[in-house]
Amino acid sequence: MGMSRIHVAVVGGGRATNEQLDQARGVGRAVAEAGAVLVCGGLGGVMEAACHGAHDAGGLTVGILPGRDRAAANPHVDVAIPTGLGEARNALVVGAADAVVAVAGEYGTLSEIALALQAGTPVVGLGTWELRRGGEPVDAVVPAADPAAAVALALAFVSTARRGT
Amino acid sequence: MGMSRIHVAVVGGGRATNEQLDQARGVGRAVAEAGAVLVCGGLGGVMEAACHGAHDAGGLTVGILPGRDRAAANPHVDVAIPTGLGEARNALVVGAADAVVAVAGEYGTLSEIALALQAGTPVVGLGTWELRRGGEPVDAVVPAADPAAAVALALAFVSTARRGT
Amino acid sequence: MGMSRIHVAVVGGGRATNEQLDQARGVGRAVAEAGAVLVCGGLGGVMEAACHGAHDAGGLTVGILPGRDRAAANPHVDVAIPTGLGEARNALVVGAADAVVAVAGEYGTLSEIALALQAGTPVVGLGTWELRRGGEPVDAVVPAADPAAAVALALAFVSTARRGT
Amino acid sequence: MGMSRIHVAVVGGGRATNEQLDQARGVGRAVAEAGAVLVCGGLGGVMEAACHGAHDAGGLTVGILPGRDRAAANPHVDVAIPTGLGEARNALVVGAADAVVAVAGEYGTLSEIALALQAGTPVVGLGTWELRRGGEPVDAVVPAADPAAAVALALAFVSTARRGT
Repeated sequence: MGMSRIHVAVVGGGRATNEQLDQARGVGRAVAEAGAVLVCGGLGGVMEAACHGAHDAGGLTVGILPGRDRAAANPHVDVAIPTGLGEARNALVVGAADAVVAVAGEYGTLSEIALALQAGTPVVGLGTWELRRGGEPVDAVVPAADPAAAVALALAFVSTARRGT
Repeated sequence: MGMSRIHVAVVGGGRATNEQLDQARGVGRAVAEAGAVLVCGGLGGVMEAACHGAHDAGGLTVGILPGRDRAAANPHVDVAIPTGLGEARNALVVGAADAVVAVAGEYGTLSEIALALQAGTPVVGLGTWELRRGGEPVDAVVPAADPAAAVALALAFVSTARRGT
Repeated sequence: MGMSRIHVAVVGGGRATNEQLDQARGVGRAVAEAGAVLVCGGLGGVMEAACHGAHDAGGLTVGILPGRDRAAANPHVDVAIPTGLGEARNALVVGAADAVVAVAGEYGTLSEIALALQAGTPVVGLGTWELRRGGEPVDAVVPAADPAAAVALALAFVSTARRGT
Repeated sequence: MGMSRIHVAVVGGGRATNEQLDQARGVGRAVAEAGAVLVCGGLGGVMEAACHGAHDAGGLTVGILPGRDRAAANPHVDVAIPTGLGEARNALVVGAADAVVAVAGEYGTLSEIALALQAGTPVVGLGTWELRRGGEPVDAVVPAADPAAAVALALAFVSTARRGT
């Protein structure tokens, strides 16, 4: 696929509402339509819905699993990497991506958002965590109105970063 | 030291204000005075101040480093573990602890808070990240008024958890 | 690609003789012709030659990199996973595979052979390490006469294991 | 303890003969008597015997565990680091050491020997793996006659390396 192909990580909870699953499918579809590779944690919920959406649009999906069993990947993962690292694999999910789209999510998702921000990787959010420190909002996660806008924003950040280096 | 000895992780930024460093030293001292082992990321700033405080009170300190070089540990680390894992080592720092005290901090600290919460490990905060989702505060990080209170709260959570299991 | 698709790791040195590179290309080609996914450490030498061979036969290649930079992958890697784990990533390379083919190799390759054997994953060798303990040979790495035979043996082991469980 | 204190990893099987356990205890004792820190995988067999020996001589022991539970450490581990990394933690055990002493051992031990050699860390062996490649012995693991000699050799290698840099 060429190393210059953009990789977008979609992060979010293993459990999700129907609305969040719809959003995740939309994000996956938009990632695939843009010709980008979708990276995720490989399990269910938002991860599975995003892979599903990407597959519907003919995209390639990568699942970086916490356990050792490739069979734990959701059925829409093309390339499953069983790490056996537990939650330390969250660092690998975002480390494999040029940009991150977070859909809702629990604390694991928050850790992925934080690890991405620490690495300087842009994060776009759909109904996900908001951060404050010292009583003031920290506007590090860029909010998006809908899945298409989220992916467009993520790709725009990558494009800007690539031009800049 | 016996496996039943309590381990408290102190997490916070590699860069910190003087006030934050004072707080970290106070946290380290209180951890040591309680007879607990202090675990941290082993580098400077809040990590070093916490180890310093623990040493002043005769405590034992463990530094779990991101790189491969034990010499990168701050001078108040007793046991330095060079992991070579980069930021994936954040999962090991909080995974080695029964409770976490967060002093201020940047995104790396936020990732440690998130990984701890995901694992069900209690987190007490001193001027650190506040979390919101869907416009509502998520009160997962327990705020403390000062270092002594932070450690007292952390130990109380561990004590409650141990009685409960 | 379906989780039931077989994954074969090809391990070997980043530096290799022309003969070893020819063998690695042959192994990669045979893996792809069998419809299996090729997993490797993603860098040069045997890893690159194996990916090259797999590509020539239309196969899919996965490179699990030690560093953080996807661009370090050789040009025949389809899916590059930058782990940032250093040599700890060797455990992920073999953990992602149903069988391992080792072509020559240095100590890193030996660690991959050992980690595979420890996990009960079959290892076939082409001019690679031989093991002895207590003065006696330990016949854990199955020697193969040529690349085609190596892959045939590896696939036969996987097939036997799948029937058995 | 100061970062300049020497760390020696003792690696070997979780199951061992009485003779091997005696050797491991002797190695642990010699490590402690030399004022070095003993690092190991934290579990039973050779690891426990080495920690036991070190404790008998007043030494400090560090156990880097594959799982997430500190309580899995053997009772002679002073500082237990639960990594949750599975066998990828083998890279951390040898990465934390200036020299490695291998007592017998299975494939996990072989992986630790290989990872140490790859990192340029000296390895001394007591009845452990012997390596061959291309029909020729590779004399990378230095054989020792007994536990005291093994530790003396390991420390001599470290001393030489430190003078050289």
